[in-house]
Amino acid sequence: MSADLPFQNVAIIGLGLLGGSLGQAVRAHLPGATTRGYDADPAVRVRARELGLADTIADTAAEAVTGADLVILCVPVGAMGKAAREIAGSLSPDVVISDVGSSKHAVAVALAAELPGFAVIPAHPVAGTERSGPDAGFASLFHNRWCIVTPPADVDAAKLARLVAFWKALGANVETMDAAHHDLVLAVTSHLPHLIAYTIVGTASDLEDVTQSEVIKYSAGGFRDFTRIAASDPTMWRDVFLSNREAVLEMLQRFSEDLTALQKAIRVGDGEQLFDHFTRTRAVRRSIIEEGQDDARPDFGRSDHNGGVGG
Amino acid sequence: MSADLPFQNVAIIGLGLLGGSLGQAVRAHLPGATTRGYDADPAVRVRARELGLADTIADTAAEAVTGADLVILCVPVGAMGKAAREIAGSLSPDVVISDVGSSKHAVAVALAAELPGFAVIPAHPVAGTERSGPDAGFASLFHNRWCIVTPPADVDAAKLARLVAFWKALGANVETMDAAHHDLVLAVTSHLPHLIAYTIVGTASDLEDVTQSEVIKYSAGGFRDFTRIAASDPTMWRDVFLSNREAVLEMLQRFSEDLTALQKAIRVGDGEQLFDHFTRTRAVRRSIIEEGQDDARPDFGRSDHNGGVGG
Repeated sequence: MSADLPFQNVAIIGLGLLGGSLGQAVRAHLPGATTRGYDADPAVRVRARELGLADTIADTAAEAVTGADLVILCVPVGAMGKAAREIAGSLSPDVVISDVGSSKHAVAVALAAELPGFAVIPAHPVAGTERSGPDAGFASLFHNRWCIVTPPADVDAAKLARLVAFWKALGANVETMDAAHHDLVLAVTSHLPHLIAYTIVGTASDLEDVTQSEVIKYSAGGFRDFTRIAASDPTMWRDVFLSNREAVLEMLQRFSEDLTALQKAIRVGDGEQLFDHFTRTRAVRRSIIEEGQDDARPDFGRSDHNGGVGG
Repeated sequence: MSADLPFQNVAIIGLGLLGGSLGQAVRAHLPGATTRGYDADPAVRVRARELGLADTIADTAAEAVTGADLVILCVPVGAMGKAAREIAGSLSPDVVISDVGSSKHAVAVALAAELPGFAVIPAHPVAGTERSGPDAGFASLFHNRWCIVTPPADVDAAKLARLVAFWKALGANVETMDAAHHDLVLAVTSHLPHLIAYTIVGTASDLEDVTQSEVIKYSAGGFRDFTRIAASDPTMWRDVFLSNREAVLEMLQRFSEDLTALQKAIRVGDGEQLFDHFTRTRAVRRSIIEEGQDDARPDFGRSDHNGGVGG
């Protein structure tokens, strides 16, 4: 291993938005490292070769991980166990196994069960777009985004440090926390927002008295914002909700209580309560922009220079 | 009146995001017309003069509308009646009175009550950003956005045609419909999305087991999208919910039923139902982009080139 490189040979299993971005990010930021990629879908492997998403695209997962000192599983959370089984017999003893899944307790359990004796250190880069597939990725995806690492209690400190260094080299900020807390935090900052967006886009599609054409034409009143995250990968999100069920249901319960309170304020005409609530939520946006976690321009800097919230 | 100009003298009452944009849009697109602006807040009038939001900034609403052939009320929906009372005695008999409010039945009733005998033709440009105030506007706000005009049954056809021509001259597409249907359509494309966004941002702010700092740091997982519309003007939105109560509560009921169905699918582990729902909602985004109602780039084209939906 080179003195400068946290890992020399990186295997990437799954070459969609995250895996493809990872391959390109390693090439851009860790030019001394080699990457080997694999995807279960033969068509994705063909496209990954055309795009050069990794130095080599292997035809089996086992081949991809042979000789790797870091393996990152970039498959839907529900497919982690299967992916781990496919590579278990071909891993080097000192390898670090990590992943990019959006729920962490379920992944930690699945990987530990399939890979006893190996150093499994789950992680979750909080980054992405609504696109998916091998054409969706780009090298700067992780810049200034947070990567949450959820090491097990008995983690090898040196290996953890190398994984942290790896993500920092790709431009990410790194935080460590336990898997259960990660799942609670992401339930509110990511999983619940997606569930709500998926719901409202479905609601708007099913109306009889408002046509689909009207919903689309007048979407700049706010609705269009929700359609972006409701366009995210269905397999990935099915697995997120099934694997982080308890935390999602807990956050959903709180959301429903708050929604009922605002519903009642509307019904009884309590303008003061509405005004106070809407004033308080305004401050959160300012904090997010101050912390560099969103575009400071109005309307996310949309190209039409206008848009989202005319009412 | 010039042959080319639908209106010669345009009075704009209220100089926030919408009123200020309107003044700038008239100057850019109808250079032969003159504009006179007024805002109830003296500080806004000072700023409006500095920014040149209208050719003249009057010190009373009555003065602003004197001699105008078009008056556009750009005040919160709940302030429409009061604004109408202030101008009633100073209007020219042939004037067209319109507005930009986000609910239309309540506005039509309020304006008809205060301005008997005048041609009141309510309208709603579905355009805006999360910003508010006199500094927030810009001349191109209405480009390629829809303006919904809700004429009363006894509308003067020539006056309606001039109002439609006015909005088209500012770059908008124009649709006419009755006020009740407008209120139903906007309840789903704008009012419900805002209510949901305001709710979830409030929910995320009130948690004990997840800190506010964590919510902000990991907001790129999806939450940050909601904070944009939850940063919208509290007064405006209080008035929207109070004035379009029935339609908002109706849409909220449907949303809650759909959310309960997805909640149950998560609880019982029905991955197929989740997958089917998430696949269906994906198509709506494509239609919105095809119709030119949103930025086609991933993540709204945010400047960080990454972001919103890493899970």
